[in-house]
Amino acid sequence: MAGEVQFKGKGQALRLGVQQELGGGPLSIFGAAAQKHDLSIREVMVGVLAKLAEQFPDLEFRHRISLSKREMNEKLQGFDPRLGQALFVESASIRPDGGITEVLDRHDRWRIILVGESKHQGNDVEKIRAGVLQGKNKDQDFMAAGNAIERMHKNVLEIRNYMLDERHFPYVVFLQGSNFATESFDVERPDGRVVRVVHNSGMLNRIDRVTASSLGRDINRNYCENIFVKAGDVEHMVQVASLFCKADPWKAGEMGEVMIDVAQTSLRVIADDLVVIGG
Amino acid sequence: MAGEVQFKGKGQALRLGVQQELGGGPLSIFGAAAQKHDLSIREVMVGVLAKLAEQFPDLEFRHRISLSKREMNEKLQGFDPRLGQALFVESASIRPDGGITEVLDRHDRWRIILVGESKHQGNDVEKIRAGVLQGKNKDQDFMAAGNAIERMHKNVLEIRNYMLDERHFPYVVFLQGSNFATESFDVERPDGRVVRVVHNSGMLNRIDRVTASSLGRDINRNYCENIFVKAGDVEHMVQVASLFCKADPWKAGEMGEVMIDVAQTSLRVIADDLVVIGG
Repeated sequence: MAGEVQFKGKGQALRLGVQQELGGGPLSIFGAAAQKHDLSIREVMVGVLAKLAEQFPDLEFRHRISLSKREMNEKLQGFDPRLGQALFVESASIRPDGGITEVLDRHDRWRIILVGESKHQGNDVEKIRAGVLQGKNKDQDFMAAGNAIERMHKNVLEIRNYMLDERHFPYVVFLQGSNFATESFDVERPDGRVVRVVHNSGMLNRIDRVTASSLGRDINRNYCENIFVKAGDVEHMVQVASLFCKADPWKAGEMGEVMIDVAQTSLRVIADDLVVIGG
Repeated sequence: MAGEVQFKGKGQALRLGVQQELGGGPLSIFGAAAQKHDLSIREVMVGVLAKLAEQFPDLEFRHRISLSKREMNEKLQGFDPRLGQALFVESASIRPDGGITEVLDRHDRWRIILVGESKHQGNDVEKIRAGVLQGKNKDQDFMAAGNAIERMHKNVLEIRNYMLDERHFPYVVFLQGSNFATESFDVERPDGRVVRVVHNSGMLNRIDRVTASSLGRDINRNYCENIFVKAGDVEHMVQVASLFCKADPWKAGEMGEVMIDVAQTSLRVIADDLVVIGG
């Protein structure tokens, strides 16, 4: 029956499932599509959902493309009536581009297990390869990086607020483009001149503009499970976004692997709520 | 002597100072400049600093225009070595446009007591008053609002991280422009036609895009003193940005009054650290 979790025993089936290796290795998730780098994160998310449904046939998942401010406010009000009061546009919502994946727990509550976003900033590599100079006078190899990426923090913060009562924070952001290079490399122009893309140049690199959402933790790792940190005399449960950066486009298989890993971490953290004992 | 706090007794002088009414009312802070709305927040901050120095002659204040990621990372590492690890551009820093005001405590540590930012988005009122139509075909009274304001969250998050060990969060943002109207109103064009600015229109209003930083608390209030909120089985110390929104430009006196209030709240929260007992 829809909406009913059918695990028996103390979640053994679920835990086994989580620990099980993905058959055939990570790139097999999407078969031939794994090597593609022109799939949108939304398409990859569909593949991730299919994989989860296959791995956990007794769980019910759903995917949403938006979450309304009204629903977020109601949740905040439930924590404390001082929160979640402001709302100006009735239809306001957030729309992470990969959407929001949830699982139905045994209390009939939908729990977020994966939120994905994919951002591109910096086309310098493509321009250099094409032999196109940039800037006002069209005489430069590089374009000074912009700051549009800083908008990323908004949705992270919204989901943080919404998940204050959870011990996991499954927010993954894939960042790509010359503004997110993690090492320096050379690119050859059509005329043979080689241009070095320096990854830690202040003109180019914008990774430092996004790490406020990860409290400066090392990039390219899964931080889905919250940690507790003592600062002064206050203990904080810290929600860290998992930021994945590189200059090259992320392949579907790479994104899928990370997202499966994060979703599985979520399921492990909330496993006790997914099990019907003696059901 | 510089760097030495000279209060005696148990902070009575300080506490009296905080409770004392501002002589002549809030608008007197800046004298004749109070009514001006073309002062930058940086200029207003200078006035606030002067007022604080006058109110608290025994305290030492300083004002910074930037805070480096390196310093923020070092503070995060001090809380927990897993945090504050990522740094790509050595010179990376944040620069809230009103700067950062700090006070020296009796342990010789600089403590943030005020961070101010001022943001403008939405010129519709000015355009209507000038009789200028907008849009691709120059036939509309309003321009669909953009999303640049969402970058605001980055600096709020950076300062949140930096102040995880404090019980106050003195971050004030003044938002102005037609995208931040809190009530509807009429504007007359030169040709006599009256245009209604509807404050809760999805095309125009962008307040909902900034309230993630205030956890949806009501706008236009001072939330400098942190609150504790229980969500699920976790207690959180919640850092709430104080967001001040309206369509009209903020006057220097209005901004100054808010900022003094927030700075005084900070001083009250950390008062015990400002007092040298028997010094």
